[in-house]
Amino acid sequence: MRLSRYFLPTLREPPREAEIVSHRLMLRAGMMRQEAAGIYAFLPLGLRVLRKIEQIVREEQNRSGAIELLMPTIQSAELWRESGRYDAYGKEMLRIQDRHEREMLYGPTNEEMITEIFRASVRSYKDLPLNLYHIQWKFRDEVRPRFGLMRGREFLMKDAYSFDVDEAGARHSYNKMFVAYLRTFKRLGLTSIPMRADTGPIGGDLSHEFIVLADTGESQVFCHKDYLGMAVPDEKVNFDDIAGLQKTVDQWTSLYAATEDMHEPDKYAAVPADAQVSARGIEVGHIFYFGTKYSLPMKAVVATADGKEVPVHMGSYGIGPSRLAAAIIEASHDEAGIVWPEPVAPFKVALLNLKQGDAATDGACDQLYAELTAKGVDVLYNDIDERAGAKFANADLIGLPWQVMVGPRGLAEGKVEIKNRKTGEKEQMSPAAAVDLLGR
Amino acid sequence: MRLSRYFLPTLREPPREAEIVSHRLMLRAGMMRQEAAGIYAFLPLGLRVLRKIEQIVREEQNRSGAIELLMPTIQSAELWRESGRYDAYGKEMLRIQDRHEREMLYGPTNEEMITEIFRASVRSYKDLPLNLYHIQWKFRDEVRPRFGLMRGREFLMKDAYSFDVDEAGARHSYNKMFVAYLRTFKRLGLTSIPMRADTGPIGGDLSHEFIVLADTGESQVFCHKDYLGMAVPDEKVNFDDIAGLQKTVDQWTSLYAATEDMHEPDKYAAVPADAQVSARGIEVGHIFYFGTKYSLPMKAVVATADGKEVPVHMGSYGIGPSRLAAAIIEASHDEAGIVWPEPVAPFKVALLNLKQGDAATDGACDQLYAELTAKGVDVLYNDIDERAGAKFANADLIGLPWQVMVGPRGLAEGKVEIKNRKTGEKEQMSPAAAVDLLGR
Repeated sequence: MRLSRYFLPTLREPPREAEIVSHRLMLRAGMMRQEAAGIYAFLPLGLRVLRKIEQIVREEQNRSGAIELLMPTIQSAELWRESGRYDAYGKEMLRIQDRHEREMLYGPTNEEMITEIFRASVRSYKDLPLNLYHIQWKFRDEVRPRFGLMRGREFLMKDAYSFDVDEAGARHSYNKMFVAYLRTFKRLGLTSIPMRADTGPIGGDLSHEFIVLADTGESQVFCHKDYLGMAVPDEKVNFDDIAGLQKTVDQWTSLYAATEDMHEPDKYAAVPADAQVSARGIEVGHIFYFGTKYSLPMKAVVATADGKEVPVHMGSYGIGPSRLAAAIIEASHDEAGIVWPEPVAPFKVALLNLKQGDAATDGACDQLYAELTAKGVDVLYNDIDERAGAKFANADLIGLPWQVMVGPRGLAEGKVEIKNRKTGEKEQMSPAAAVDLLGR
Repeated sequence: MRLSRYFLPTLREPPREAEIVSHRLMLRAGMMRQEAAGIYAFLPLGLRVLRKIEQIVREEQNRSGAIELLMPTIQSAELWRESGRYDAYGKEMLRIQDRHEREMLYGPTNEEMITEIFRASVRSYKDLPLNLYHIQWKFRDEVRPRFGLMRGREFLMKDAYSFDVDEAGARHSYNKMFVAYLRTFKRLGLTSIPMRADTGPIGGDLSHEFIVLADTGESQVFCHKDYLGMAVPDEKVNFDDIAGLQKTVDQWTSLYAATEDMHEPDKYAAVPADAQVSARGIEVGHIFYFGTKYSLPMKAVVATADGKEVPVHMGSYGIGPSRLAAAIIEASHDEAGIVWPEPVAPFKVALLNLKQGDAATDGACDQLYAELTAKGVDVLYNDIDERAGAKFANADLIGLPWQVMVGPRGLAEGKVEIKNRKTGEKEQMSPAAAVDLLGR
């Protein structure tokens, strides 16, 4: 993409309203814009990141056997009366009356609707297990939205719902999501640690939060340091292997790990002192097993092998891709700006023309752009007529993994300069070598 | 995808509430489910179609130079007061009060918001032309939602907005979208005809609807038959070629073409009798040029080359991917079910195991499934234990372009049967030949 044809409204000044670094950097880097309190437009650069996160989340859901569908944002209040949550859910639920004065709401989550879809068509244990997910906008009317995407009102959520004939099956479904989440966060370039969690308004017996460590995280967490290097199953993991998944989950839950809310200082004290990690963390995923909490009142039942009707055992599993965009920045930035992990970077390469209008420099840049693009590399080509210093600062701010700097001085020696955004390392090489390196 | 692990709740009986064929078939084929009046969940099969349509729309928007972003669904009423449309827009706008009693709304369209985004950062003619689009859920509170996705309340819309320094530039931007739309509908397997249209609540001077011909279409349309075979620019079309695009648009607007609303019987009478086409049509796209209607009241101005400030000239351009899913079915179905054009088919191949449980048949199917999948072909493998007749009927209903039927009788001769869903033609061939044919 040529910057001259793109829409990247970066800001020179840090915006005053932004209290945390991800919020500040997303606004400054032209990734998003606030349209109302806690409601943001994703500008083109931000949308590219969001879509990459979404796609990794989707691939790992699919790998685990979950099936994607898409539920609407607006729901009928009737449905929530069936579960009893319409009155129980507080003011965070955005309640709406349509033109016929029917009570509707903007879905903050979808347990009721997915249970309705399930009960309309599934009758037998033979159709189980089933895990249905969607990636859809949600709304929670936070009393004081803040911190940008970290606590917005309209946000993107992947929510999955599992259905099993009994608790043992549901436990395996839970373990599948547990492992899928470990894999998802790892692919996003994050170190995540599952921590036993409160079940809150979703309810249920068993729940884990996935916490990402970041110096600027929202809350204090405590864990054993062995989590930091613990192996995450690779892409060959067999999601049908009940015992194998249980072993992985056992390993990932055997050591001490707790958020502030669930912290037990005496148990933490039993962790060897040199293995105690007390750090800041950000919640990026939350999984629940809640048994028959929704299937009982909503009459979602299946026939078992011996012909009895039983309510299905359910779990729900959430990841917020929009929140993750912010969390990744919290975990990966420096003084100069964002440092994108390559899998979620909006473009892989920033190509900087250091003397726009100089025929030789323009020509070399155009050729590099064409060759990299032909190799399938996403390049943001800064072909704007502005001074080199502004281009350097802008490239550091938006944080693409690689910068290629092309100017008359280097070209005179047949060289361009490659900079690795993360390490800051620079190297001179021929344009052909640069294409070779970055096109891998 | 193995059907035994998928979620495809087809219906035996045509649902009573469905008045038109696309609505009936989408419900019967397990593509969607109504969650409230005019509000649908896309079940897995329907979502695959929606995503394929969306992707083709996206690719053609990108090819024309439009830039994707994503605006939120919930908007502030303030914004719409600036343009004067908050009061002007009727009850179709879903109005919402949040917990702090601020007036919000679920966006039915985004002219105001995109103008706000534009004016916040663009100052100069040098940053133009600019065309920004998003693909996002919209809500229009229809008094009587009906016809399934054809007139739903919550629907997916691609809406693009162009910004130019003057009318001549805006005309070129309009022509780009005109050509992008021709290409989009062609790629979707549709015959579309642009027809001069009323500008309605969007306002403006110039507008075309794109109408797809379908026997079961919603309204009567009248046109010259030469439109039916008119060439659509191929993918090498140069969107920067002002004169070239104008020539294409002139060609596509030179002959008579009108919807019922805009029909002029005396002009139509001037079309040679053997060239008169009177048919049913479905609106699938609508483009507008409306000059400074929003930029003037909302003060979206840019500096011209000679330093003056002028309000930008704008256009907006809509395609509804969810409506298109229904329109494609209206244009392509038969007595037995849907007939998907290959580019939007949810899977390319239905693999039917005609004797589930027979070791040889299961083995041959498993191998075909593995080989086709390895070639990147999307296969829906019916591995359910049900009779062959039900599998045939189901495959015809969901309408995948190709069916591969595998049974013991054919296998005894080393053959499987391939059926083309559209033509009904069947052919016996070896499994290897089938993989070769379908893997192309």
